[in-house]
Amino acid sequence: MKAVIKLGGFVFSEDRPLVADYVKLLRDFVGEHHLVVVAGGGPIARAYINAARTMGIPESLCDQLGILVTRLNARLLVDGLGEYAFSEIPVNIDELKHYFASGKIVAMGGLQPGHSTNAVAAIAAETISAELFVNATDVEGVYTADPRKDSRAVKLDEVSVGRLTEILSNADISAGAYDLMDPLALRIIKRSKIPTVILNGQDPQNLVRAVRYEKVGTKIVHD
Amino acid sequence: MKAVIKLGGFVFSEDRPLVADYVKLLRDFVGEHHLVVVAGGGPIARAYINAARTMGIPESLCDQLGILVTRLNARLLVDGLGEYAFSEIPVNIDELKHYFASGKIVAMGGLQPGHSTNAVAAIAAETISAELFVNATDVEGVYTADPRKDSRAVKLDEVSVGRLTEILSNADISAGAYDLMDPLALRIIKRSKIPTVILNGQDPQNLVRAVRYEKVGTKIVHD
Amino acid sequence: MKAVIKLGGFVFSEDRPLVADYVKLLRDFVGEHHLVVVAGGGPIARAYINAARTMGIPESLCDQLGILVTRLNARLLVDGLGEYAFSEIPVNIDELKHYFASGKIVAMGGLQPGHSTNAVAAIAAETISAELFVNATDVEGVYTADPRKDSRAVKLDEVSVGRLTEILSNADISAGAYDLMDPLALRIIKRSKIPTVILNGQDPQNLVRAVRYEKVGTKIVHD
Amino acid sequence: MKAVIKLGGFVFSEDRPLVADYVKLLRDFVGEHHLVVVAGGGPIARAYINAARTMGIPESLCDQLGILVTRLNARLLVDGLGEYAFSEIPVNIDELKHYFASGKIVAMGGLQPGHSTNAVAAIAAETISAELFVNATDVEGVYTADPRKDSRAVKLDEVSVGRLTEILSNADISAGAYDLMDPLALRIIKRSKIPTVILNGQDPQNLVRAVRYEKVGTKIVHD
Amino acid sequence: MKAVIKLGGFVFSEDRPLVADYVKLLRDFVGEHHLVVVAGGGPIARAYINAARTMGIPESLCDQLGILVTRLNARLLVDGLGEYAFSEIPVNIDELKHYFASGKIVAMGGLQPGHSTNAVAAIAAETISAELFVNATDVEGVYTADPRKDSRAVKLDEVSVGRLTEILSNADISAGAYDLMDPLALRIIKRSKIPTVILNGQDPQNLVRAVRYEKVGTKIVHD
Amino acid sequence: MKAVIKLGGFVFSEDRPLVADYVKLLRDFVGEHHLVVVAGGGPIARAYINAARTMGIPESLCDQLGILVTRLNARLLVDGLGEYAFSEIPVNIDELKHYFASGKIVAMGGLQPGHSTNAVAAIAAETISAELFVNATDVEGVYTADPRKDSRAVKLDEVSVGRLTEILSNADISAGAYDLMDPLALRIIKRSKIPTVILNGQDPQNLVRAVRYEKVGTKIVHD
Repeated sequence: MKAVIKLGGFVFSEDRPLVADYVKLLRDFVGEHHLVVVAGGGPIARAYINAARTMGIPESLCDQLGILVTRLNARLLVDGLGEYAFSEIPVNIDELKHYFASGKIVAMGGLQPGHSTNAVAAIAAETISAELFVNATDVEGVYTADPRKDSRAVKLDEVSVGRLTEILSNADISAGAYDLMDPLALRIIKRSKIPTVILNGQDPQNLVRAVRYEKVGTKIVHD
Repeated sequence: MKAVIKLGGFVFSEDRPLVADYVKLLRDFVGEHHLVVVAGGGPIARAYINAARTMGIPESLCDQLGILVTRLNARLLVDGLGEYAFSEIPVNIDELKHYFASGKIVAMGGLQPGHSTNAVAAIAAETISAELFVNATDVEGVYTADPRKDSRAVKLDEVSVGRLTEILSNADISAGAYDLMDPLALRIIKRSKIPTVILNGQDPQNLVRAVRYEKVGTKIVHD
Repeated sequence: MKAVIKLGGFVFSEDRPLVADYVKLLRDFVGEHHLVVVAGGGPIARAYINAARTMGIPESLCDQLGILVTRLNARLLVDGLGEYAFSEIPVNIDELKHYFASGKIVAMGGLQPGHSTNAVAAIAAETISAELFVNATDVEGVYTADPRKDSRAVKLDEVSVGRLTEILSNADISAGAYDLMDPLALRIIKRSKIPTVILNGQDPQNLVRAVRYEKVGTKIVHD
Repeated sequence: MKAVIKLGGFVFSEDRPLVADYVKLLRDFVGEHHLVVVAGGGPIARAYINAARTMGIPESLCDQLGILVTRLNARLLVDGLGEYAFSEIPVNIDELKHYFASGKIVAMGGLQPGHSTNAVAAIAAETISAELFVNATDVEGVYTADPRKDSRAVKLDEVSVGRLTEILSNADISAGAYDLMDPLALRIIKRSKIPTVILNGQDPQNLVRAVRYEKVGTKIVHD
Repeated sequence: MKAVIKLGGFVFSEDRPLVADYVKLLRDFVGEHHLVVVAGGGPIARAYINAARTMGIPESLCDQLGILVTRLNARLLVDGLGEYAFSEIPVNIDELKHYFASGKIVAMGGLQPGHSTNAVAAIAAETISAELFVNATDVEGVYTADPRKDSRAVKLDEVSVGRLTEILSNADISAGAYDLMDPLALRIIKRSKIPTVILNGQDPQNLVRAVRYEKVGTKIVHD
Repeated sequence: MKAVIKLGGFVFSEDRPLVADYVKLLRDFVGEHHLVVVAGGGPIARAYINAARTMGIPESLCDQLGILVTRLNARLLVDGLGEYAFSEIPVNIDELKHYFASGKIVAMGGLQPGHSTNAVAAIAAETISAELFVNATDVEGVYTADPRKDSRAVKLDEVSVGRLTEILSNADISAGAYDLMDPLALRIIKRSKIPTVILNGQDPQNLVRAVRYEKVGTKIVHD
């Protein structure tokens, strides 16, 4: 199966047992699945963005610093995967297409200011005609509201793009603060009807469940 | 004044008197204004996109073909501007920042699939801390509805980002079909409160009016 | 067989049924033939060159605009060919050699001002030690004179490089106006005795005939 | 004065008041001094290197991850310096020479596995024929022994390259663990007799003292 | 005056007093003239080409090796010129245009297989709209025949492009063996009516004479 | 076996029978061994460095000229090896890793000023986790002193890194004058315990002996 896996920045946080776990998991997928893995930025990205914002640097350049951290995280994946990964990190869609044609796992980070690595993952999924896009976040899936702020929030097993757009419509896009999916990601998922699952990546086994089409997290449904 | 000018693809259409007119106008601005000019794709972009879509090529790659046409249009501007323009076309935000630092006019096209050159222009405006972003389209400004489809549509002199988002919320994002502003452009304009004017670029004098802060087209107002 | 196919710009003209036909044909060649396909510029290249020349831009830069259109045409081929094509367009001979080593079809456009994509195709043929170079033009082959201007022109089945040089010696090299073969192409064909056929590419089946060594168009013979 | 300033990774540590202080200081130097600033990696580099080493990644690739962090730190400097800095980070000596010719401050990180950013700074000093190379570390200067391990260590006001080589001869070169100067840095300093000062960069005013040729830290003397 | 100077490979031959002489001369021109200097390959290029040809390497790749030597020669010029030269060597026409806009001397070598550095110099002259193109060879100018082979050869003070084409029509284009001007150079000179002088560069003072429009070598005249 | 072969610059000297011999030998190794071949600079590098030094060019830029010659030598190897070699020359460690993953022979030259191509070869060996690093020099191996200067010098069959460091400790690092191993090479060999043999490459059969683990030259032993 051709799939895109977005790994949230938390996977690369300082005490980092998770990145090694994911490297092991991804190696097991080789042969069966052909993957693009998109790395998020996490706390280190936020630290650089905050340092930059404090100095009055424009938002788009703060975004760029965050993107550099996501590429650093992608590089750690590439090095850990060794011969199973394509050794370069794509920085545009042409490169992604080119590197993916090698048959190896391609790891990448952000591409451009103004949108999240979720949007990057959606564009990647469109480019490789992915059969599955898994967004491995640090929450169980899509809730009717932000579960960190609202205790009445209920997790949804399935959600339409329209409904999800509504739920997320108040999300803030200042650099580093995107959540779950940004509007650009949603529009791409919608225009190419990309099969998408949002799940909790803190347990790597959830990813195994997703590629086996077992019920996990929240599935985005298309009409 | 630091400003970003988006020139719609119609400026570069085959019978092309407009591109030469704009080159002349932009040369006159040198000294007074420091500009980034973003070129749209127009009918040639649409022709390539259609040819590609007919062959079943993924949407993101159709977008890429359109982007190549926008860069070709930008190159025509650069060649026409001669020594007044930076001789390279930036293909990412780092290059834009770098080339703009030369003090010359920077011309560019699209950057990435999934969003319009309007979003590119907004990100460029954010990056250079532009005092003005002019979107030179082929309509008079923002209407309460699409004036090509609805005869009751009324042109607005001013519009808030929120109101404009609402008006444009049904826009189609299949490659080459963006209108006026796409959601990413709007979010960037909003987060950095970029002073923005949408006007009719079929009359180049409208651009002169905009940089003189005369009333023309539709102004986006921030709270 | 290792071969270089030059597709004249007419293949990519706006109503474009031909590009899809050629994509289909080239896919069928995979396995049997290993190809470099060089795209010409055609009417869109001429339109950009004319726009540039009108603005007084130097000839070499007009050539460069035409080259960008040939690369755009090559990109359309690459996207249409999908996994059968190498995903990048070479812009110099080192890249050509590198990309061809992938075993995939390599599509490319022009390389440098001052000579035609026919010369590019000849250099490509030399670089890959091609067994055949097919120049798919919009005429039946080489005539004793320009058939569009002289009704007494007779088509030749075979022609020596010396004779062809003579026939073409009055060709104009202003950007975008090359015909059949330019002097540089001829000198390369001569120095490396490249087996070459010039044929009418408006019928894609002529290409099939050429790779089967059937009699078609005009063959360039070496002593 | 043409000078190279090496800023140890501690300048970019998470609570980071220092990077903003240095940005302010460096802006004040513009006009009087023409600078190359080389950023170290610090704790974030060490965290990535450790994560990589845990996964059994070769030392040279661990070094590369550390280099990416140094470039990220350099980027933060560039963004903070705004128009005073050249907007690109050089990744080889040709680029350094090229970017320095702009007359702006050039910020850079590491270049290659196997040696420290101190060696990079020494090569940069040689390339621009620097009149001063300041190594801003987190200790007061060169001691007769490692002051963190040996309480009898005495700070030296001046030291010859030969003596310093001896003192540092037991330094470990596993990625991220270089101290003060590595052997390559020393050999470059020696062959081109580069005027060098090692000082405590935790107080940015020490840098001001060094460029005024006031007594601070440890000066490397040449015969 | 904007001018292009082609320095034959003999300028860079092993005992090399000439390169230092030319560096001195070119520095003196700064302020008065804005130059592109194109370096030839000379004996070292021929040595590499011969080694390659002996191993049966295709002609176009032999050409490429020769081109690398011309760029090495150009680099020696750049390093010798220091701050007076642009620090990068252009490898295509876009880069030439870009680097020339810096106002500094641009040094370059070959660009592409199949033609000489004389053709490169002609294209460069066209690109920068040069007022003079000086080809510094190791002969006094154009003779009615090859003076090294025919003792009756007479030097011409002026020659038309047509006549020169005739004289050179038997030149061999195997890699590294071009003489004076190749056909592509001649066609470029003709199409853009580039004022051109061919002179003996073994005496650098001849270059001084040429830029002062004094009578020296052979002048190519246009109708 | 994965191995790195360093070929001293003498292999590429003007009368050059050796490069063709090595190309033949390396082709025979394909299938059995996966190789990185690092080319030295030799007399041509020294000639360019001397010319540069005479003009007062900084040492690091003299080094860069020497590096360009090593890359030219590597290119000759690549062209001679044809389909057995990766067609591009890596210029940094990321590219080396990337090109080596192709399964083809990778040829390269120097990377950065300040150290020899021996250090490059050591870093390459570390990067690919080489089982053997062969340094093919123009002497029989490591002597107790420089055999060209001291007739009492005795060749060693084995030597520890510590002892070798001592022997070489007086080596001069002015550009182009490195011998056998420079300190950086030694430190890399030591930190990753790279199995290393120094032998006389003037007889290519010595290389065959080394890859068969036969006794030849001097072996570096690790504790």
